[in-house]
Amino acid sequence: MALKMILDCDPGHDDAIALILAHGNPTVELLAVTTVHGNQTIDKVTRNALAVARIAGITGVPFAAGAHRPLVRVAETAPSIHGESGLDGPVLPEPTLVPDARHAVDLIIDTIMANEPNTVTLVPTGALTNIALAVRKEPRIAERVKEVVLMGGGYHVGNWSAAAEFNIVIDPEAAHIVFNEKWKLTMVGLDLTHQAIATPDVVAAIAAVGTAPARFVVELLAFFGQTYREAQGFEHPPVHDPCAVALVIDPTVMTVVRVPLDIELTGTLTLGMTVADFRSPAPADCTTYAATDLDHGKFWALIVDALERIGDPE
Amino acid sequence: MALKMILDCDPGHDDAIALILAHGNPTVELLAVTTVHGNQTIDKVTRNALAVARIAGITGVPFAAGAHRPLVRVAETAPSIHGESGLDGPVLPEPTLVPDARHAVDLIIDTIMANEPNTVTLVPTGALTNIALAVRKEPRIAERVKEVVLMGGGYHVGNWSAAAEFNIVIDPEAAHIVFNEKWKLTMVGLDLTHQAIATPDVVAAIAAVGTAPARFVVELLAFFGQTYREAQGFEHPPVHDPCAVALVIDPTVMTVVRVPLDIELTGTLTLGMTVADFRSPAPADCTTYAATDLDHGKFWALIVDALERIGDPE
Amino acid sequence: MALKMILDCDPGHDDAIALILAHGNPTVELLAVTTVHGNQTIDKVTRNALAVARIAGITGVPFAAGAHRPLVRVAETAPSIHGESGLDGPVLPEPTLVPDARHAVDLIIDTIMANEPNTVTLVPTGALTNIALAVRKEPRIAERVKEVVLMGGGYHVGNWSAAAEFNIVIDPEAAHIVFNEKWKLTMVGLDLTHQAIATPDVVAAIAAVGTAPARFVVELLAFFGQTYREAQGFEHPPVHDPCAVALVIDPTVMTVVRVPLDIELTGTLTLGMTVADFRSPAPADCTTYAATDLDHGKFWALIVDALERIGDPE
Amino acid sequence: MALKMILDCDPGHDDAIALILAHGNPTVELLAVTTVHGNQTIDKVTRNALAVARIAGITGVPFAAGAHRPLVRVAETAPSIHGESGLDGPVLPEPTLVPDARHAVDLIIDTIMANEPNTVTLVPTGALTNIALAVRKEPRIAERVKEVVLMGGGYHVGNWSAAAEFNIVIDPEAAHIVFNEKWKLTMVGLDLTHQAIATPDVVAAIAAVGTAPARFVVELLAFFGQTYREAQGFEHPPVHDPCAVALVIDPTVMTVVRVPLDIELTGTLTLGMTVADFRSPAPADCTTYAATDLDHGKFWALIVDALERIGDPE
Repeated sequence: MALKMILDCDPGHDDAIALILAHGNPTVELLAVTTVHGNQTIDKVTRNALAVARIAGITGVPFAAGAHRPLVRVAETAPSIHGESGLDGPVLPEPTLVPDARHAVDLIIDTIMANEPNTVTLVPTGALTNIALAVRKEPRIAERVKEVVLMGGGYHVGNWSAAAEFNIVIDPEAAHIVFNEKWKLTMVGLDLTHQAIATPDVVAAIAAVGTAPARFVVELLAFFGQTYREAQGFEHPPVHDPCAVALVIDPTVMTVVRVPLDIELTGTLTLGMTVADFRSPAPADCTTYAATDLDHGKFWALIVDALERIGDPE
Repeated sequence: MALKMILDCDPGHDDAIALILAHGNPTVELLAVTTVHGNQTIDKVTRNALAVARIAGITGVPFAAGAHRPLVRVAETAPSIHGESGLDGPVLPEPTLVPDARHAVDLIIDTIMANEPNTVTLVPTGALTNIALAVRKEPRIAERVKEVVLMGGGYHVGNWSAAAEFNIVIDPEAAHIVFNEKWKLTMVGLDLTHQAIATPDVVAAIAAVGTAPARFVVELLAFFGQTYREAQGFEHPPVHDPCAVALVIDPTVMTVVRVPLDIELTGTLTLGMTVADFRSPAPADCTTYAATDLDHGKFWALIVDALERIGDPE
Repeated sequence: MALKMILDCDPGHDDAIALILAHGNPTVELLAVTTVHGNQTIDKVTRNALAVARIAGITGVPFAAGAHRPLVRVAETAPSIHGESGLDGPVLPEPTLVPDARHAVDLIIDTIMANEPNTVTLVPTGALTNIALAVRKEPRIAERVKEVVLMGGGYHVGNWSAAAEFNIVIDPEAAHIVFNEKWKLTMVGLDLTHQAIATPDVVAAIAAVGTAPARFVVELLAFFGQTYREAQGFEHPPVHDPCAVALVIDPTVMTVVRVPLDIELTGTLTLGMTVADFRSPAPADCTTYAATDLDHGKFWALIVDALERIGDPE
Repeated sequence: MALKMILDCDPGHDDAIALILAHGNPTVELLAVTTVHGNQTIDKVTRNALAVARIAGITGVPFAAGAHRPLVRVAETAPSIHGESGLDGPVLPEPTLVPDARHAVDLIIDTIMANEPNTVTLVPTGALTNIALAVRKEPRIAERVKEVVLMGGGYHVGNWSAAAEFNIVIDPEAAHIVFNEKWKLTMVGLDLTHQAIATPDVVAAIAAVGTAPARFVVELLAFFGQTYREAQGFEHPPVHDPCAVALVIDPTVMTVVRVPLDIELTGTLTLGMTVADFRSPAPADCTTYAATDLDHGKFWALIVDALERIGDPE
């Protein structure tokens, strides 16, 4: 049975690869793509998403723009990591897809309510503003989705502060809403994604695919590698967002533990921290999970496989 | 020219009177009524709003239910003030109006966007969840509304804590969103509404109208008077929500000062406080106002007048 | 019977007048003067206190320096109000008194423990760091003092932020300690002291005393008037600290109400606010009081009287 | 040269072992022992410290009682771990040592100021109230001590909450003061001490010493093992406090990294967390360190060696 997926993203280099993986993997049925402020402004990330759709040959999937800013906090973007366009590096084509007229929040709600219960997986890879607005506007989606598998947070690792990760800390109230709903939620955080390193042999394997989309990914990784080296001191870049998609595709690609998770909203040093309570076995009603250990080879094989299947769309 | 108004409420005894005032006053054009969790659950306050519509003879106005809970916090209701139904005291008729199919958030957005710019006044008299969701989903309403005149908060007076008022503190994040948008916003808070006392002569004047709606208001005030006496130590009850409607109808009914207002989100003792900065003249870009002094006679005359105009609808 | 007093201060223009009032009033027995960081650094305010002692002819009273910084926060001073010296305006003489070798904290503890229970009144007119350290080092002083009458805070008025007053907000943790001890505590806050205005006729009455100390006070008020006009928009300056001393001398000089008081430690907008709960009668175990209304004539008569009694000491 | 040490503790089973290690190790010169509220009330832990002194044959060292409660928060103790006495399990003898008349804060200050600069190491193994009060009363000790090596906190591990450790969270303001002073400070936290497990072979080795103090330690570990099993799910108990003493004795007993450390004071989920910033190399002015990896064999050999040297004092 197909894995029905809604991808809510802010491309963003790793979001672009997540979108390519979701599109190219044969078990995923991509129902909708929604965009959210984050790596860049909503206009830029929406345009980027549509440009990636053209590169990867995605058609017949509704794309909709969502929240232009966080619920409560002042908006922040990440040009130090993703450049001024949000997808600096490659030259982007003009999009050919026309966005859906609906707001992302309504597209998410409509898609979930129109499908059978427990069939749709929500995969947010940006700030959680759209997801929070959707579940507050239509609370029934909390019971109807199959699960939420998100890229964000980190139980022992931060990047935007000592204790917090970018996607969470730029809209901590939205994250608090999403982490406290009664759906099954898996956090694929920095603890995991800092293992998804695009090493030179990984880049070589992608380049060897030899298609335009593969070349695009290589260019993304080149830019991403440079900013991660300069801004965060990484030798080779971690590629966060496709990890969440990969977990939906193949649960054996990483280890996941059940652990209570919550979002710190008032900390001076810890605002937006995803606080995990590892002190004892998770209580019976705990529905939150955290990814811990990645199978690096299996993960990158999924990426290469998706690129091979996509081929050269144009 | 008619004063176009959207009333967002959680009836609620004083909300019911606010609705009657908005309906009965000849200068108000009531465009929509939306409901929000607060004094009671969303189901109860929506049913109450529709019952009041029948009592007051309101037809041709869309009513829509909105948020069932606050953005971030755990939901709270106020049975100590409004009883288990949210409108204890009078016997309520079965509603005859059928609610609009849209979510309150969409009804608010659609109504504002369908009317000319600067013509629609938003009058929230409950938690600010719907308004916050609406302006986050459709940011253009912030420039398109004429103004927001709300009942909530208090610059020197609290009721649900030493420093905070019920409507604000039950969803402080929503209030923070609404108070920080760039629309003109007037806070009709407890400082003002604690002057809108339903004294015995006021109740007598309402009773003298002699209609079914007037009897309904007298019964509301009897119940409200009792709970305010028991739960908050008031001799006669303050009637909060119609004050906001009254200010829209007649700016001379109260004094208003321009003063920076913001919402405290992290205080231990002051969570949800509406912090006013009276230290010096408000800066040039300040768009927030606070009501200070009520003309008690003029205010209650508006209520009596509305009841007289409504007459006996059935 | 003499009113035994320890004055803990950070002179500071109004602290200087408070010291003169405590010394010149015949019913006060000044047991000790201790200094604390605040209006200026501990070295400057200690030197200022000793200079005022010489001007006012104070001898035989131990003076001791105390805390050089707040408990937790980064130190702040108030040069915009008190100038670079902490007592700008008059030319100060070289002190002749030699400070006590003890730390202010130990002088406070020793003085309280050496006197009969319920005889010593603590009058802090600066940050509460010394008092907090003293009661944590020697908890028995909490039961042994007669009461604490302090200048600081404000239930509806702030000066260093919209909601907070300088003495409290520069060391809110110390204030939290002091306000939550089980001694009788009276807050003479900005609500009261903004009534203690040094109007031109007040200044004229002081000048008419014709002595060197009176001329010193006139010079203090001239400088204070100027900074209050420029930094805070006052026509004539409020004179805060002597109000606390005046209340000890004559309880009829102001109205005081019993009301629960506490200090906000985590607020973003309200850090250091003295939160008063006026919602209902104070509970039976409430030991905190707030000053509300000043008898302006009676207050300034006490100052003039003290200056007349002091005469020309040198 | 002797390692001059002040031990500030709240015995406490592991504090007792820390005291025995400090006394029995030949390179340590124990200058003073001070006690602080924490595992139990100040009266109980002071009595326990004196009882341990008798058991271990400690004479000629001043013992002084310190703070009876945290600076700001309400006092908390840990009977679930240490029992009602704070040292449940063994039968304790009547103390023979008479405590010093000074407050712990003054004993700490006097001892540091009476010794040569950079010779005295402060080893706190309880709440940091005494140390915070001492450095606020006498700021010069911050430059005069050699270093602070404390047991408390944890960069990735909590025990009293998901994110915080007992010693820190019971007085987070004191911890904030101590972690932000400009002395060299090493945190031996739960990350390290959860490696200092008293396994059965460790207990056997201690028992084999065959003296009364060794039997006392075995009894301590039996009780501690039981409460750690029941309250925290440990198979064998971690023994925290002696780890800090051990690091002073032998820097090779554990790995230490230089990393910025600070204390969260306002978090809802993270209050009292010791936030470490591992994102990049520590800045040049960083003076905080965290212990990471323990040499288990070397650590327990120090304990056995100390017991062997102590022999049977009575």
